[in-house]
Amino acid sequence: MKVNGKDYRATWWDGDAIGFIDQRLLPHRFETATARTLAQVAEAIRNMAVRGAPTIGVMGAYGMALAARNGDSLDAAYDLLLNTRPTAINLKVGLDAVRSVSPDPVAMLDAARAHDDAEVAAARSIGGHGAALLTHGSRVLTHCNAGWLAAQDWGTATSPVYTAAREGLSPFVWVSETRPRLQGARITAWEMVQEGIDHRLTADAAAAQLMRQRRVDIVITGADRIAANGDTANKIGTYSHALAARANGVPFYVAAPLTTFDRDTPDGEAIPIEERDEDEVVFVEGLSDDGVVRRVRVPPVETLAINPAFDMTPADLITGFITEVGIVPATPDGIADAFRRPRPS
Amino acid sequence: MKVNGKDYRATWWDGDAIGFIDQRLLPHRFETATARTLAQVAEAIRNMAVRGAPTIGVMGAYGMALAARNGDSLDAAYDLLLNTRPTAINLKVGLDAVRSVSPDPVAMLDAARAHDDAEVAAARSIGGHGAALLTHGSRVLTHCNAGWLAAQDWGTATSPVYTAAREGLSPFVWVSETRPRLQGARITAWEMVQEGIDHRLTADAAAAQLMRQRRVDIVITGADRIAANGDTANKIGTYSHALAARANGVPFYVAAPLTTFDRDTPDGEAIPIEERDEDEVVFVEGLSDDGVVRRVRVPPVETLAINPAFDMTPADLITGFITEVGIVPATPDGIADAFRRPRPS
Repeated sequence: MKVNGKDYRATWWDGDAIGFIDQRLLPHRFETATARTLAQVAEAIRNMAVRGAPTIGVMGAYGMALAARNGDSLDAAYDLLLNTRPTAINLKVGLDAVRSVSPDPVAMLDAARAHDDAEVAAARSIGGHGAALLTHGSRVLTHCNAGWLAAQDWGTATSPVYTAAREGLSPFVWVSETRPRLQGARITAWEMVQEGIDHRLTADAAAAQLMRQRRVDIVITGADRIAANGDTANKIGTYSHALAARANGVPFYVAAPLTTFDRDTPDGEAIPIEERDEDEVVFVEGLSDDGVVRRVRVPPVETLAINPAFDMTPADLITGFITEVGIVPATPDGIADAFRRPRPS
Repeated sequence: MKVNGKDYRATWWDGDAIGFIDQRLLPHRFETATARTLAQVAEAIRNMAVRGAPTIGVMGAYGMALAARNGDSLDAAYDLLLNTRPTAINLKVGLDAVRSVSPDPVAMLDAARAHDDAEVAAARSIGGHGAALLTHGSRVLTHCNAGWLAAQDWGTATSPVYTAAREGLSPFVWVSETRPRLQGARITAWEMVQEGIDHRLTADAAAAQLMRQRRVDIVITGADRIAANGDTANKIGTYSHALAARANGVPFYVAAPLTTFDRDTPDGEAIPIEERDEDEVVFVEGLSDDGVVRRVRVPPVETLAINPAFDMTPADLITGFITEVGIVPATPDGIADAFRRPRPS
């Protein structure tokens, strides 16, 4: 998508290194950065400068290509990158796509680029399938950032919105702020501003009441890993939205490319859930009134916090998956069938 | 309860004025302040320096007594105070208790003190009834601050915890941070630290997963107004917790004195829900690393927010009400019966 009139993806190959948008700085600063070493790639994923399941898969793919170019041990590179974050399966898919053609650095870079382009094609196709679920003025609730920054381009949950906007459907987005890292308030809201999409920020826990009041037509979230039975791990808070949607008869869709499906994991209980540092709950960062980006501590210094980064939404709460091969039922058979359909290119 | 070894209530009569703890400054500063005029009383309630349904009822009662002492129009005082905040019915109950003995300033002050003491007696009694629901090490999830600062002393949702702690039951509290005003992270966590209660802070939307993982034994929240059929208005986010509790078989109790029940309101749809300034969602205040309390803006400047202060939890999601006359079923008959039981003194 465009930023200040220039086309960007979330991360890209930059000659002999990897460029990326430092998503930690949004919305108050837009800055790009460069990872020249494997360690820098791993750190950018771990500290969430680069985040979003499909995007970290692409970053991992380019990371393997960079390791090959730099003469690093490819096995060690694979393990290092795979262990940066445990929940999103896309990371493993991206790494595998490039390792499968190792050790030729040129072939590996080509494979990384192909993986990148395939993810972008998938994201764009998700937009077409998902836009068919929207009508004029549809009010879409989304959580976290499953936007173009999370999926290189177009996004997963946002792709139907951007597509609908281009079709003149004037969608409206409820942006769930997404504590603790506030990716909704910081990143999705920034994307909405950039794309000129009418939107309104809401505290996560206010979404249930919006649904009860019939002010939400559809919920669309992304996913970090979808098990073989359709159970879905996604950003903490997704499960609450799914429960509220079910209680109020609001359709609840998960938008994700097939690279997010992990058919080797039988169900949600088997998906590893990352626990992150409690400081992410304790401190909030933003622009202070003196124009400086600062962090502030909210609770007393004596108070400890718990910080699971993801939760698990059972398949039976999910109306369907919006994928690049169409709308897929949240059932084992529906998912198996999706993998037999032709993929867009 | 004690702060730095000295007994406090949230607000108190101070000779010829009203003293109160400025709850906006917690947890990073503990300061008391004084309201000497009716306008100052109204402002302290409106800006949430004094908050919590039973506490603002007591503040309102003292406010009427102050108006009488200062020679203000009592009708105008009543209207001014009643309109500071719309949702909590306790405010009206407190105002009515004092207006009913007007215009004698001495009688009005006596009535305000009696209302204050009755609320404290109710809160303490809630503790006894609620503690009977806990066993050793019970893990209690609570939302917002339904603590002693919200109910003059003991609290509503926290009173069972404080009582259980004094009985040696070592309760554990999950403190839901409660966006946007973060009363859980700021005020309930501070109370837990002061009282030495083992606790852990959680993002609101992580609570559902804690329940799914069987890490919550009971949910206890407060209430701002309970309709005749048991529908309950409470801090935004309460409804989400109730849905998660129901989905996971966790008992969901609402702790409230009878002054929170509004038998003139038939159901939750008839309860007015306060909408507050969107800046409460946009900005977060806390202690910055340079030791100064600052606010920081999280979303882009172009992004607007919605800020309903309360939500409505349907009666059928509520296991029971913990009141000063015992545990009450969330049904019209159960509530009507509660008002026939003798109250503690």
